[in-house]
Amino acid sequence: MNSNKVLKLKHYNRSDAYESCLSPSKPIYFGHNILHHLESHVATLNPDKVFIITDTNVAKLYGDTIKAQLLNRPNHLVTFNAGDQNKTLQTIETLAEKVLEAGCSKNSLILNLGGGLAMNLGGMLASLLYRGIRFIHVPTNFIGQTDVVLSNKQGVNTFGGKNLLGMYSSPEFSLVDTSFLQTESKRSKFAGIAESMKNALILKSDFYAYMKKVLKSSINDVDMHELAKKTFEQKLSICKRDPTEKQLGLSLEYGHTIGHAIEILSKGDLLHGEAVYIGMHISAEIALQLGIMNQSDFKEHQAFLKSIKISSKIPKSITMDKILIAIQKDNKKTGSQPAFILLKGLGELHQIGGQLQTMVPKKIIEDCIRPYLS
Amino acid sequence: MNSNKVLKLKHYNRSDAYESCLSPSKPIYFGHNILHHLESHVATLNPDKVFIITDTNVAKLYGDTIKAQLLNRPNHLVTFNAGDQNKTLQTIETLAEKVLEAGCSKNSLILNLGGGLAMNLGGMLASLLYRGIRFIHVPTNFIGQTDVVLSNKQGVNTFGGKNLLGMYSSPEFSLVDTSFLQTESKRSKFAGIAESMKNALILKSDFYAYMKKVLKSSINDVDMHELAKKTFEQKLSICKRDPTEKQLGLSLEYGHTIGHAIEILSKGDLLHGEAVYIGMHISAEIALQLGIMNQSDFKEHQAFLKSIKISSKIPKSITMDKILIAIQKDNKKTGSQPAFILLKGLGELHQIGGQLQTMVPKKIIEDCIRPYLS
Repeated sequence: MNSNKVLKLKHYNRSDAYESCLSPSKPIYFGHNILHHLESHVATLNPDKVFIITDTNVAKLYGDTIKAQLLNRPNHLVTFNAGDQNKTLQTIETLAEKVLEAGCSKNSLILNLGGGLAMNLGGMLASLLYRGIRFIHVPTNFIGQTDVVLSNKQGVNTFGGKNLLGMYSSPEFSLVDTSFLQTESKRSKFAGIAESMKNALILKSDFYAYMKKVLKSSINDVDMHELAKKTFEQKLSICKRDPTEKQLGLSLEYGHTIGHAIEILSKGDLLHGEAVYIGMHISAEIALQLGIMNQSDFKEHQAFLKSIKISSKIPKSITMDKILIAIQKDNKKTGSQPAFILLKGLGELHQIGGQLQTMVPKKIIEDCIRPYLS
Repeated sequence: MNSNKVLKLKHYNRSDAYESCLSPSKPIYFGHNILHHLESHVATLNPDKVFIITDTNVAKLYGDTIKAQLLNRPNHLVTFNAGDQNKTLQTIETLAEKVLEAGCSKNSLILNLGGGLAMNLGGMLASLLYRGIRFIHVPTNFIGQTDVVLSNKQGVNTFGGKNLLGMYSSPEFSLVDTSFLQTESKRSKFAGIAESMKNALILKSDFYAYMKKVLKSSINDVDMHELAKKTFEQKLSICKRDPTEKQLGLSLEYGHTIGHAIEILSKGDLLHGEAVYIGMHISAEIALQLGIMNQSDFKEHQAFLKSIKISSKIPKSITMDKILIAIQKDNKKTGSQPAFILLKGLGELHQIGGQLQTMVPKKIIEDCIRPYLS
């Protein structure tokens, strides 16, 4: 890292505040080394106690750091086991009992520390406790900081389907400190970046060009901060136009019909972004086969995806039959058939009669999945 | 029943529509023999499927009746076991899996048939499925028709506390047909009427005088319809003034601090209204001891309660210690001490600094509970 870059990074040692989508009064503070602002923001909410909800891994890494920030304010660390297989109502129940045991009242605050799992579980927990108490997000990984923090969707999996139970609900504020990313594994970061690539593909803009460039170089801490910030800002621009993801926002589900299916079938082996990455490959194949996307766009689409080192192979344990059953459980589903978000070209969404979701014949889905099976 | 009464009852064979509290656009249809209106109201929502959520007892009594009303509309009966001990997240999970298995989509409709348990469980289930699908209430017992149908509160118990997890959420419409009451047991009706007596006590009015009169006679079907309708209208008037029960609406929790505690400790032996009935007796003792209520009002309060045949004795299995622990888990709780709604006089709420909740010394709580132990 050269000194110029160090200077640039120092510049971020302050907090930019963004308006969140569903509730403009609920800010998102974004910056590098801004964790020391946490207590002053919490103080404005004046909770009787703070409950830090996090997984056992993040608790080891950052539990003490967060507790130190909260000074003498009463607080408790409440943990769950990492892994998407724990994203269940059962975990919500266990967490509820733990925080109630520790004296959680209607005036308490839930602080969700970690990745999407901590935010989704803690957000849902808070939204149900006493019919809704206040919560805040402190995301520590790339996907949490750039994607989940903007979603306003809390929830858990059930019946073999992702996020089938949940609600829309906004944190009082979120604090995104990109210095957390320094301890994130490359694999986890890359999986997060796959989601950024998805957003770059559905809304091709300067951001797409920026991503193409940045993925060619080895990514240092300054790059990570900038990449996170730019990804965050691009998703925010989409969310603002459709906060509950009914129309344009649905495009954010690109790659997710197959992605969610193989993510849940992998039982924790695949990270969310890795599964969506494979889902995007297959979605482009479907668009090509249906004649929706032309050969040249298809090539650019796949080449862009290949600029990041993630495997496009579906794990061996996952069979074609299992995938076909699992995509029936997609939470976008409104009719009897699974629906796909498809691209006409890079940055161009395919629509029929104003609908972003396309029903795809089973035969074509199978043909397009087959090359990606292990 | 004399012919005059029969004529009067026939008059009710029509539907009066009331505006619900949280969402004026979501009506409550109230009448006698109005079930044949169900399908036409459902038709306006145009769901792809209807899922009837009910307990196994109500399913036997009225499952076929409701299915017959829905004509050729795709519908499924989905049951759970009766009893407040089944008001859990685990039941929500099981119900979710059953309706998803049967093809529930975002366009489906949940129809909650039965008492408060069916309405609370089904309302919470619908509010969580796909982050919220539409639901309707068809209450079949007195407390469901006069109390729960107006609450907009969905939820389950956890950690030994009543309704600690849930949300505010309104049905698209409710259909209250008092002809269902003809099959309700006397015990269950009386428990429901105890809640009406509570409302009569907190907001003494013509309704209080009416209740005093009606409880002196043997109650026939016409009386039951009128009693249900008057109870419903009185609670509606309170809810309209405070839909989320933050202030005045909190008064509806009269008798509930002790009531909820002994209800959950009885593990299904006491009906909700029976537990609240005991709770009101004890609340009056507390108000008397604290010098908040005078002797004359206290006597009238207890005499009024005794005009219905419900036991004021706490079941043998429930000890003083268990109650003192359980009231710590009250969902009104905002501080470290349990809080009580107390009456200054009949129809007069006790307030300190605008607060309806009064902290009561443990010693006084114990003294007032003791006479009611078995």
